[in-house]
Amino acid sequence: MTEQKNQHILLTSRPKGMPSMENFTFEDIEIPEPQNGQVLLKTLYLSVDPYMRGRMNDTKSYVPPFELNQPVSGGIVAEVVQSRSGEFEEGDLVIGNLPWALYTTAGEQEVRKLDPELAPITTNLGILGMPGLTAYFGLLDIGNPQEGETVVVSGAAGAVGSTVGQIAKIKGARVVGIAGSEEKVNYLKNELGFDAVVNYREAGNIRQALKEACPDGVDVYFDNVGGEISDAVISLLNKYARIPLCGQISLYNLEKQDVGPRIQGQLLINSALIKGFIVSNYASQFGEGAKQLGQWLQEGKLKYEENVVEGFENTIDAFLGLFKGENLGKQLVKVAEPSQS
Amino acid sequence: MTEQKNQHILLTSRPKGMPSMENFTFEDIEIPEPQNGQVLLKTLYLSVDPYMRGRMNDTKSYVPPFELNQPVSGGIVAEVVQSRSGEFEEGDLVIGNLPWALYTTAGEQEVRKLDPELAPITTNLGILGMPGLTAYFGLLDIGNPQEGETVVVSGAAGAVGSTVGQIAKIKGARVVGIAGSEEKVNYLKNELGFDAVVNYREAGNIRQALKEACPDGVDVYFDNVGGEISDAVISLLNKYARIPLCGQISLYNLEKQDVGPRIQGQLLINSALIKGFIVSNYASQFGEGAKQLGQWLQEGKLKYEENVVEGFENTIDAFLGLFKGENLGKQLVKVAEPSQS
Repeated sequence: MTEQKNQHILLTSRPKGMPSMENFTFEDIEIPEPQNGQVLLKTLYLSVDPYMRGRMNDTKSYVPPFELNQPVSGGIVAEVVQSRSGEFEEGDLVIGNLPWALYTTAGEQEVRKLDPELAPITTNLGILGMPGLTAYFGLLDIGNPQEGETVVVSGAAGAVGSTVGQIAKIKGARVVGIAGSEEKVNYLKNELGFDAVVNYREAGNIRQALKEACPDGVDVYFDNVGGEISDAVISLLNKYARIPLCGQISLYNLEKQDVGPRIQGQLLINSALIKGFIVSNYASQFGEGAKQLGQWLQEGKLKYEENVVEGFENTIDAFLGLFKGENLGKQLVKVAEPSQS
Repeated sequence: MTEQKNQHILLTSRPKGMPSMENFTFEDIEIPEPQNGQVLLKTLYLSVDPYMRGRMNDTKSYVPPFELNQPVSGGIVAEVVQSRSGEFEEGDLVIGNLPWALYTTAGEQEVRKLDPELAPITTNLGILGMPGLTAYFGLLDIGNPQEGETVVVSGAAGAVGSTVGQIAKIKGARVVGIAGSEEKVNYLKNELGFDAVVNYREAGNIRQALKEACPDGVDVYFDNVGGEISDAVISLLNKYARIPLCGQISLYNLEKQDVGPRIQGQLLINSALIKGFIVSNYASQFGEGAKQLGQWLQEGKLKYEENVVEGFENTIDAFLGLFKGENLGKQLVKVAEPSQS
């Protein structure tokens, strides 16, 4: 070990509304010693995701809240720098749900080996990882888009949304995205082949813009954002519409109660379905999903974009950027180079 | 034909908010002559149902709106008093969706023969008819209650709600009703075996009362009412909860937009499902449903209550009573005696 510095990021106060740097503390710590059956890991890439905001509250959410004065954790690609496990060797690349730290130890069961020949290692945090699987299962299991149907996806330029739209295209649907900048609109239309994209910041009357973009109504609405954007989409549902409810990024930093038109009337007159989900509901089928996503990726049917911020010290900035609509595709933080490269 | 009087009820103006007598006109008309292939029918019982309110608006709903200055129509049990069809004889009892009139004609395809030996003829408008089938398919297909789960039903003392609760009991669930009078609470608990019933008019804090009635949370919520009652139930959902969305009686007469806490956050953290439906979605399975309901009825596992108003002239009063929480069980209007009785 030539490099002795270690650091981790603690959640030291719970955000009220939008989080800020002040909720987090970078703390210098020792590099831990792996115990028997453990490996010492060097973080290469860490993933920042909107769902993490929910875990910063001390309330029930998808997953238990982060503990105060403990490191934040999430999806991380790391390199084994010391192994006391028979299953891993120095230099192995692994993925796991790990603390935001430069170095950490993990048990054999907590990480999974990656094959860097199959696809770029960062895809394991994006299109072949949690966001890709979220898109895959939410869209196909709940949304079940049919050829010729109209699929609307909000948060369309994010890691999940951009994959949803492309899978819907593969299934023969007409795909309408909702995104918040002209750069994103152009990317979704020109690079990913979305049929139409509504820029919610520029649209003025979002419902009218959506109505024009969806002349045959909405059959599937993959919802990442909630709030008024969703109100508008839900007012355009067709009979037997399906809404996979994936995220509500408009809520995550809301301090007051989220109030709006009740949607039950629309669901009722359209015999429509809405279902919340979290990707871990589909854990038993992850293998199948990852295999199909990998195949589409190899066939060139799926594209992805990564937005990589360099440096562990910029982790919180990258996380906060998720709520400012800054990221196109998967937001990652590059913490270190693999040693063999 | 000894009796020459005929009359029908027209919708002569569209209600704003709660309907009143003034929206309807009783008009004296001739008794029509059946054409070839038609029968002349004498109305015996007519059904008034909450969903009809939706059809009185000139807006999209489950079914097309009633036309202005045309008779209101709905489920009717009638007797054939003259037949020009080979399929029906004088004296046959039939059911169909027919105009609110003392006498009317109908084609062979518009009515179905009833066997008065199988069950009282009025059950074809209630527990063995549209309301019973609504309860059966909504609860079992969408709600899918499992043994030991908690099923909450709003509008619990109505024709649909009381059947929902009893089917849920048959399936081994713990059943909690929501109703609006002590008479209804006692009926549901003592006659139908509901495990708990919340009187929403007396409860004060409806959420707190529901929480006490549902110590293990809510797995299935069969929603007939919407509004604040539903907000309270939805705040108590368990993981993987299911909500068959059957009606929104709180909305039907609402003149302003229905606004409340957005429910998506609750659905998301609980991976919960909500699905609107209308009984005709299940038309291809009506035979199966009616057979099962009939069997449970014969076995004494299902009970029903009818609230019969006498006299065609009281039809509108009976309809308006639905929105005042007056009816226990199926609301019917008895228009005439069968001639053979």
